[in-house]
Amino acid sequence: MSRPVIEFWYEFASTYSYPAAMRIEALAAEAGVDVDWRPLLLGPLFNEQQGLTDSPFNAFPVKGQYMWRDMERVCEAEHVPFERPSQFPRNGLLAARIAVAGLAERWTPQFSRLVYQANFVHDQDIASAEVLTPLVAEAGGNAEAALAAASSDSVKAQLKDHVTQAKARGVFGAPSFITADGELFWGNDRLEQALDWALHHHKTREFA
Amino acid sequence: MSRPVIEFWYEFASTYSYPAAMRIEALAAEAGVDVDWRPLLLGPLFNEQQGLTDSPFNAFPVKGQYMWRDMERVCEAEHVPFERPSQFPRNGLLAARIAVAGLAERWTPQFSRLVYQANFVHDQDIASAEVLTPLVAEAGGNAEAALAAASSDSVKAQLKDHVTQAKARGVFGAPSFITADGELFWGNDRLEQALDWALHHHKTREFA
Repeated sequence: MSRPVIEFWYEFASTYSYPAAMRIEALAAEAGVDVDWRPLLLGPLFNEQQGLTDSPFNAFPVKGQYMWRDMERVCEAEHVPFERPSQFPRNGLLAARIAVAGLAERWTPQFSRLVYQANFVHDQDIASAEVLTPLVAEAGGNAEAALAAASSDSVKAQLKDHVTQAKARGVFGAPSFITADGELFWGNDRLEQALDWALHHHKTREFA
Repeated sequence: MSRPVIEFWYEFASTYSYPAAMRIEALAAEAGVDVDWRPLLLGPLFNEQQGLTDSPFNAFPVKGQYMWRDMERVCEAEHVPFERPSQFPRNGLLAARIAVAGLAERWTPQFSRLVYQANFVHDQDIASAEVLTPLVAEAGGNAEAALAAASSDSVKAQLKDHVTQAKARGVFGAPSFITADGELFWGNDRLEQALDWALHHHKTREFA
């Protein structure tokens, strides 16, 4: 019997994607669910779906004010360190391309967690190759090869395809979780519910 | 020792306010927290804060599509009946004014639950006095007096004041919960967390 799987759609600039990225592997392992890491870019979705040219947390300050306070509470409750970065949002394009490049060699999850920590704990500019290069090595990848791959047409096309797929499946924010039967769950606080769904509906299909 | 209290800010057109309204009294009683029901109108907030002239779930269809599916899941999990209404959003102005009028006589919570059921179970037009009148009586109020009060300057001013208060305290959506120390929690799925906060920080203050 195959294991259930959940797609984890995340954007490196997204605040709530950070605690989700730190939590998902342990919770999924406990539930017996595999995680399919899917880096994406929210900018094109925000622009096309909502006409935004900036994060909604900047475009609508009252939402941003709430989010920063809520992130403090969420991260404290989850025992995830958090420092509000001096720049928001940071450009996650290069990090997302590197994350795509690492999927085949399976260092993407650890690399992604390190990028989130760089942004939301250490206040580093994750748009910078200098910041990202050591994180690839720390995650177990070959930094030189990863940077080269990140600028290749195939990796660029694969990341674009992630955005296209996400849009086609109804994603409008991050983190988002999609189960094998197509159920979409939005938000770090829906991670547990999404895992429950993946588990329950997988069993139903297997024995149907 | 006084009991902790939580403010419950809700709008009758708001989908996620419905399960919150149905759940809050039992959960609050269990936690030993009192509930201060605060009807408000989201339209002025959406317009002023986000430039919207319609529900964000209509303005951004991809968000609406998610919300309607999510509401089905949420209500099923909470054992709250739910039918997607044929009109959305319905104008909650009259219902909100009646709810304000009922605060002193304490029939507002039950009236509010009945209005939500009219909208989100029975697909009735809650903008209509004909729909609302029997609900006042069912909640234990005097329908004629309530309708008269709802069109009085004092009740109109009180509802406007609710909107002004909500805005001043950072509310941008519903349901929202605010504890006595000013912590804001947004969303039906944050009700439990808000009650925990109200309880914990109340004790801290009492013994400080």
